[in-house]
Amino acid sequence: MNYYSEKDIRDIVAKVVNSSLGAAESKPKAADSNEGILVEVSARHVHLTVEDVEKLFGKGYRLTPKKMLSQPGEFLSNERVRLVTDKGFMQNVAVLGPERKRTQVELSATDAKSLGVNVPVRLSGDLDGSGDMLIIGKEGSICAKECAIIAQAHIHMTTEDAQKYQVKDGQRMSVQLASDRPVVLENVIARVKDKSKAFLAMHIDFDEANAACVNEGTKAFIVKRW
Amino acid sequence: MNYYSEKDIRDIVAKVVNSSLGAAESKPKAADSNEGILVEVSARHVHLTVEDVEKLFGKGYRLTPKKMLSQPGEFLSNERVRLVTDKGFMQNVAVLGPERKRTQVELSATDAKSLGVNVPVRLSGDLDGSGDMLIIGKEGSICAKECAIIAQAHIHMTTEDAQKYQVKDGQRMSVQLASDRPVVLENVIARVKDKSKAFLAMHIDFDEANAACVNEGTKAFIVKRW
Repeated sequence: MNYYSEKDIRDIVAKVVNSSLGAAESKPKAADSNEGILVEVSARHVHLTVEDVEKLFGKGYRLTPKKMLSQPGEFLSNERVRLVTDKGFMQNVAVLGPERKRTQVELSATDAKSLGVNVPVRLSGDLDGSGDMLIIGKEGSICAKECAIIAQAHIHMTTEDAQKYQVKDGQRMSVQLASDRPVVLENVIARVKDKSKAFLAMHIDFDEANAACVNEGTKAFIVKRW
Repeated sequence: MNYYSEKDIRDIVAKVVNSSLGAAESKPKAADSNEGILVEVSARHVHLTVEDVEKLFGKGYRLTPKKMLSQPGEFLSNERVRLVTDKGFMQNVAVLGPERKRTQVELSATDAKSLGVNVPVRLSGDLDGSGDMLIIGKEGSICAKECAIIAQAHIHMTTEDAQKYQVKDGQRMSVQLASDRPVVLENVIARVKDKSKAFLAMHIDFDEANAACVNEGTKAFIVKRW
């Protein structure tokens, strides 16, 4: 028969406990004690290239800011466009500035159904194979190929926030919208940037907001990191 | 120095491991191995009393079935109504039959915003303090007090299903909509009835369906019981 010292036992127990805690850690956690994150709801909107702004609003035209948004430098412009498909249209659609390298239309799944277009759920900028859309402005129109997406829910954060919330740029998270009608979105992406380029906020669309009856005070909590 | 036999160590380790596994068990589980449940998406609709059917469609009138629904005896009728508030209206709204003991309007949060009414999230039948609505039919109109709710997501099941899924009537569950854009609804209610009165199906509204991009093949999985 073998005998073990107290230190041996402590070592064995520590090893076993750590391995079972390890298994437990891989399961989803209940809401962390993390500080809640501001939730911002994006309505349907359009980003345009300088070339497309000129085609839609006239030679030499540039977007004019109506209201600054929470992400540094981003703004809601005074300009509006109409989106048209063979199945329907939407008028008075917001254009966000400043101009970008690629034209992009962000819709909700409800919008996409109403326009009768097949639009993938994507992160901003990931446009290959996305939907086509006719965009009409005051002075002209463009037939924008591969521009239309349903925006994947994401959290903008600084590198400091990322450290605090223990996530990396591009990491997938499950995030609880802690409203009276609570919902967990399971495929939310962390978008981490320099302090000068990011402001901590979760961006969701109106389908997600209405499914959770999100209001101004609703906070988001990261409940799992994948 | 104390020495322990191998049996002593096994006992100590078993005790410690069980207590840490116990802690792990109390955390929410990842998707169970439960069979997936059919998801049905409810558009806005109205239930009417016999009296209100007569006020809207004429003396002696009864709702006529157009299509049977999954819940035994329930049907989509051929009749349609218009919903009106001081902020807006919705036409061609479905009426479900058979007639009920109380008139009830079920909207999505998107509908409620568009109609400019404050409508609570409730289970069917729980109407005290709910929203008012003007309902217009072919032959008349009613001003229905305390009738309008946003339907709380629920799962209809038989007593046999309830045993299988280990839930009771009225129990709250977290349920995953296992789509390409997965979402967990955290406040879903089990509605358990006799085999003759229930058919296993999860009922959600279009906000919840679109937030998760639910399609015909999407299944629901109970991931937590509260």
